[in-house]
Amino acid sequence: MVEPEPVLVLVRPQMGENVGSAARAMLNFGLTRLRLVAPQFGWPNAKAVNAASGAHVVLNRLEVFETLEAALADCQTVFATTARPREWPKPVFTAEAAACALRPRAMGGAQVAVLFGPERTGLETDDLRLCDAIVTVPLNPDYSSLNLAQAVLLVAYEWYRAGDATAPVTPIQPPEGRRLANKAELAALIDHLVAELDEVDFWRVADRRASLIRALTGVLARAELFDSDAHLLHGVIKSLAGKRRRG
Amino acid sequence: MVEPEPVLVLVRPQMGENVGSAARAMLNFGLTRLRLVAPQFGWPNAKAVNAASGAHVVLNRLEVFETLEAALADCQTVFATTARPREWPKPVFTAEAAACALRPRAMGGAQVAVLFGPERTGLETDDLRLCDAIVTVPLNPDYSSLNLAQAVLLVAYEWYRAGDATAPVTPIQPPEGRRLANKAELAALIDHLVAELDEVDFWRVADRRASLIRALTGVLARAELFDSDAHLLHGVIKSLAGKRRRG
Repeated sequence: MVEPEPVLVLVRPQMGENVGSAARAMLNFGLTRLRLVAPQFGWPNAKAVNAASGAHVVLNRLEVFETLEAALADCQTVFATTARPREWPKPVFTAEAAACALRPRAMGGAQVAVLFGPERTGLETDDLRLCDAIVTVPLNPDYSSLNLAQAVLLVAYEWYRAGDATAPVTPIQPPEGRRLANKAELAALIDHLVAELDEVDFWRVADRRASLIRALTGVLARAELFDSDAHLLHGVIKSLAGKRRRG
Repeated sequence: MVEPEPVLVLVRPQMGENVGSAARAMLNFGLTRLRLVAPQFGWPNAKAVNAASGAHVVLNRLEVFETLEAALADCQTVFATTARPREWPKPVFTAEAAACALRPRAMGGAQVAVLFGPERTGLETDDLRLCDAIVTVPLNPDYSSLNLAQAVLLVAYEWYRAGDATAPVTPIQPPEGRRLANKAELAALIDHLVAELDEVDFWRVADRRASLIRALTGVLARAELFDSDAHLLHGVIKSLAGKRRRG
């Protein structure tokens, strides 16, 4: 089954290159359905193709409409991005919450859409009349100048993230044929080191021995040694001690 | 107290305008500390100033270093962005998990940093040697062409989001002097409507009455009426019924 996709709708965009940048931002997150309402430039548009940087699949599928009603005719749930909340009785979602709300509807078979306004002015109140909710990206209140393609990028990113199963943290991957040292190997390494340090009375004051061993153990534990690293460090300890004895 | 900030480090950036776009992306999310390592263009740079679009505070604080070591000298924890995981024994974080890991360290007094590589090639393996972990934004595997400023935007966005207390959904705000209708007002409205519909035997078949009342109640409940809307709808019902009676 093909994953359902939201339609992203650019209302009265002013610059062709922003359509290309939006297409590129969308495809980064697997989205391909872009619609324009009353663009303020000719279409097809060379600047858009240039800025799309290989995201041809988005431009090839792109649809142009004269009115917002026509662009939304087949859509069931429509959210509109605005920079500031308006005096308009709609709930306001963060970009993340919007993706979490829209994705299950899309999976349930509804066509969902997200609107973006013209570069300079954003959506007008009248553009919001067909919308179910507002999307506003939380921004630095003293400098909120997201451009059109950046707004598209963040909405597409949150859509992708809402369905993405990437582990937040992937632990260190050992090189081919190696594995992380286990705690027995770590303890043997500490024992080897401590035995050699005992011989040279490294601790000087007897009651520092326990705390220094704890510190050395902490260093080696935090280093997440591979089995090969433990082997290497045994060799280092042995060589240094041997050099001293020979010395 | 001033919020601690990460240092963002652009390693061998190739185009001045990308430094400006990165500055703008950063300031949108309240970040102002940008460093360049061995930029491939002169500094100061007119294209950077132009692309920064008012984010002067970032460019004014910007520092340029000849080597990565010098740029990281005062940093305690350093994460490096790469497009693909490398064969390098470091844990890999999503952008969100990286922000969640770095923010508490910064709040604890550590200077944290995030590295970004040159536009065309990204960071080289040698650039990663001083880093604690890798950051990779999950992307469409068939088209991953985030540009430098977009990568900076997403890292800055996640940093802001990790400390942001904006409610995911802000419910509908009633206009001045109004409030959402309560359930008693809703029930009174339904009763009024049903009484009028009873008079014209709207239901036709008696056993459809209950299910149709349920449907109408659902419609009005979902509409999240204000008290003024309930008042308005009482008037609409009354007028429609009156018209019929006069007719």
